[in-house]
Amino acid sequence: MAKTSAGRFFEDYRIGQVIDHAVPRTLSGGERALYHALYPARHALQSSDEFARACGLPAAPLDDLIAFHTVFGKSVPDISINAVANLGYAEGRFLRPVMPGDTLRATSEVIGLKQNSNGRSGVVYVHTRGMDQHDRCVLEYCRWVMVRKGNPDAPAPATVIPELAAAVTPDALVIPEGLDFSDYDVTQAGEPHRWGDYSTGEIIDHVDGVTVEEAEHMMATRLWQNTSKVHFDASLRPDGRRLIYGGHVISLARALSFNGLANAQMIVAINAGAHANPCFAGDTVHAWSEVLDRADTPAPGVGALRLRLAATRGHAPAELRDADGKYLPDVLLDLDYWALIPT
Amino acid sequence: MAKTSAGRFFEDYRIGQVIDHAVPRTLSGGERALYHALYPARHALQSSDEFARACGLPAAPLDDLIAFHTVFGKSVPDISINAVANLGYAEGRFLRPVMPGDTLRATSEVIGLKQNSNGRSGVVYVHTRGMDQHDRCVLEYCRWVMVRKGNPDAPAPATVIPELAAAVTPDALVIPEGLDFSDYDVTQAGEPHRWGDYSTGEIIDHVDGVTVEEAEHMMATRLWQNTSKVHFDASLRPDGRRLIYGGHVISLARALSFNGLANAQMIVAINAGAHANPCFAGDTVHAWSEVLDRADTPAPGVGALRLRLAATRGHAPAELRDADGKYLPDVLLDLDYWALIPT
Amino acid sequence: MAKTSAGRFFEDYRIGQVIDHAVPRTLSGGERALYHALYPARHALQSSDEFARACGLPAAPLDDLIAFHTVFGKSVPDISINAVANLGYAEGRFLRPVMPGDTLRATSEVIGLKQNSNGRSGVVYVHTRGMDQHDRCVLEYCRWVMVRKGNPDAPAPATVIPELAAAVTPDALVIPEGLDFSDYDVTQAGEPHRWGDYSTGEIIDHVDGVTVEEAEHMMATRLWQNTSKVHFDASLRPDGRRLIYGGHVISLARALSFNGLANAQMIVAINAGAHANPCFAGDTVHAWSEVLDRADTPAPGVGALRLRLAATRGHAPAELRDADGKYLPDVLLDLDYWALIPT
Repeated sequence: MAKTSAGRFFEDYRIGQVIDHAVPRTLSGGERALYHALYPARHALQSSDEFARACGLPAAPLDDLIAFHTVFGKSVPDISINAVANLGYAEGRFLRPVMPGDTLRATSEVIGLKQNSNGRSGVVYVHTRGMDQHDRCVLEYCRWVMVRKGNPDAPAPATVIPELAAAVTPDALVIPEGLDFSDYDVTQAGEPHRWGDYSTGEIIDHVDGVTVEEAEHMMATRLWQNTSKVHFDASLRPDGRRLIYGGHVISLARALSFNGLANAQMIVAINAGAHANPCFAGDTVHAWSEVLDRADTPAPGVGALRLRLAATRGHAPAELRDADGKYLPDVLLDLDYWALIPT
Repeated sequence: MAKTSAGRFFEDYRIGQVIDHAVPRTLSGGERALYHALYPARHALQSSDEFARACGLPAAPLDDLIAFHTVFGKSVPDISINAVANLGYAEGRFLRPVMPGDTLRATSEVIGLKQNSNGRSGVVYVHTRGMDQHDRCVLEYCRWVMVRKGNPDAPAPATVIPELAAAVTPDALVIPEGLDFSDYDVTQAGEPHRWGDYSTGEIIDHVDGVTVEEAEHMMATRLWQNTSKVHFDASLRPDGRRLIYGGHVISLARALSFNGLANAQMIVAINAGAHANPCFAGDTVHAWSEVLDRADTPAPGVGALRLRLAATRGHAPAELRDADGKYLPDVLLDLDYWALIPT
Repeated sequence: MAKTSAGRFFEDYRIGQVIDHAVPRTLSGGERALYHALYPARHALQSSDEFARACGLPAAPLDDLIAFHTVFGKSVPDISINAVANLGYAEGRFLRPVMPGDTLRATSEVIGLKQNSNGRSGVVYVHTRGMDQHDRCVLEYCRWVMVRKGNPDAPAPATVIPELAAAVTPDALVIPEGLDFSDYDVTQAGEPHRWGDYSTGEIIDHVDGVTVEEAEHMMATRLWQNTSKVHFDASLRPDGRRLIYGGHVISLARALSFNGLANAQMIVAINAGAHANPCFAGDTVHAWSEVLDRADTPAPGVGALRLRLAATRGHAPAELRDADGKYLPDVLLDLDYWALIPT
């Protein structure tokens, strides 16, 4: 019996199939320190136990994207190891802050399948959930990926395309238990701008650029136990460059967004996301945000902003797409998410 | 209202102004592990809980320079984001060891201002303090930086140049509570040389060289949440190199000084310091130390050495300055500090 | 008195000499996070406290190779700082899992000496032990290195070549207290293959390749406080490349071996090992394993596999040696070890 696995191909997925992903992971202050070394992350709530306690949490949670990357990484060997492209995200919700000491595992259910007309690949839709050591769901999201067929002659499955919401509705946002921004300290947080200071349609250029090195993105991607070989093996491309994990760009852009959105402390939902073009070492990543929507929440002093976060190679163009609706070549990321911010 | 800040310019500072720096930071064993990965740090007191307990401390403190870099990093957005040069340090004192779990914040008071004769920039002197979660000051220092004017027509402030001591006097050194080197284990520390074995004027070449990579200095500088864009953005220079944070060179040199000063366990004061020339990736950093002074302390078995620590690009020249008193081009750092060492 | 040490030369070693290595080290979750960032390590027992508890351990131990590298690193300044080559390992045993919070120190006894016929160097054999804060031995191994003579006229010592076992016998393997694989979860571990599924002589290609960067191997090697200058100083070779610490390749290969040996959870012995050729940044490391032997253990549900782990530059050749028995130029590592795996 072959001991190594080539991973699943398109024909290996079935609607309703539930896959328990391997290798649970206990997170600690070590992962947080590395997150701060790899990304210019400065949101105070994830940086300081004292600040978090003043906001009603027991201690500083790990950055929301640490939870996301960890869960995502667990799913890679089962979902995207033979993926041609990571096509989209929807209905992502962060349900509980993850604390140092928590152990995460992940599971995915196949919720959609559509073979491509070329017969050589297809789109797999999954609903992925991350659970902690008490089997509480800390994070869920849907994503869809294009996966190669292993056997081109395998029959096409019945097409099932799930109905996915265009965005998480404000009433579906889960506010962390105890979160209270009534006594929020804007000085310690770094900027004075509150929920009411942002208006729909407003665009914020996050100013700074960060140049990415091969060692950095490989360390980050390994940290999440993401095994996709395109990120690590220089021999796969003639130019020796490794394709940077799309989540690395998400974290870079989110961290850059501190400059202008320092008070958008927690990500509570991912509405949609596209990795518009690949990112490579040597690229200098910039970011801008657009305020898409604003919502109240039942928690004291806590509002929500729906934000579009764009990451670009070099200085951000005003437009992300060309006349045909295609992403311009220097656009790396187009992400739509909800964040919590003091009112 | 613009959401991002361009930072303060020279004309934005006032004598007596107190600036509370943003983003408090809880430090953990993660930051220590990264410090050991980024610098060849081996001083036993910061490496081993057991060694630290045998020296009267409750556990191994974080390296003194972790505290320094963290506090310094907090001050960057408010003090040096528009700085042309980091000119000097004085009256630096380490007042309490910082332990994993401690949360640091920082504040600076403007203590001096002097516009340059060209009218386009000026020197800002600040007294910066780092505080822990109990509002105890763990670290203080003065530094002065040359800052651009945003508006060249802004009037020059009255010139105030603070009187700063040439060095911290031995009686002003603060010895950590409980520190006791009576039963100090030189074998575990790595070298036999004690306080009495060093003589004023003695020079120690620390032998080894360390070549710096872009990924390393960027990870280090981000870890301290230092946001100065010159360290991260390759597009700012035609050669794509990033200017290395001066503190990175301090930590490299201090770690290299283990070889010959393994028992100089704790930094208790920074008397003066100059970042003589910029350091870039690819440079191989070497270091040497000169014993400047020796002093007793009231703590059992604890003496103090005043040391000059020089870092150079390539092998250390005997002289740091040319005939005109200007630093030679391969000199990176000229630091004057006090360290504690067993008698 | 010179303050820095040039390290020991061949003539400085005596049979029976015991050297206590300096700088004890407390390990934490920070070292674990860095290990996961630097190597594609995914064995569940070291990744998840929950998984470890289900296997009878109090929490997830640090990766066995963290203990090995830490102990090895401590020995470098005393044993191999003037080494020309690291020739071999034997009789390595892992005696206790190392947990976050443990403090390791190391000691070596000289057990063999043989001057080379050229009179300029000799082979030093040491038995090295790593101890925790309770003076319990956590790890022991023999290794031999070729060390330069400092004084070519120093007389040759009497030749003593220790008798070293070709392999640790199964009855000498130490199973961690409490280890119990009776309820082992193969889904969470990542692969279904158990002890009985492997047969002697079976070869497993671990598929993936990892390209190494200078920043990565230097951070790893520094993390273990290994001071050998060839790993850090670009000026030592005309091409500016740094020689990669052999242990870095061991950890890369062991982590790659997850793909096919995900259930070989713990290393309990190192029987032999050769760093066949040097590894450099830019190399893409691949690995394969051969099952050499199988053994029972007294622990419930726990079997042992003796494995040969080969690491190669580029895709693994079927043969490691040429017709003369010499390692082929792209062979990096040939390691022989025992691992524990559920029956």
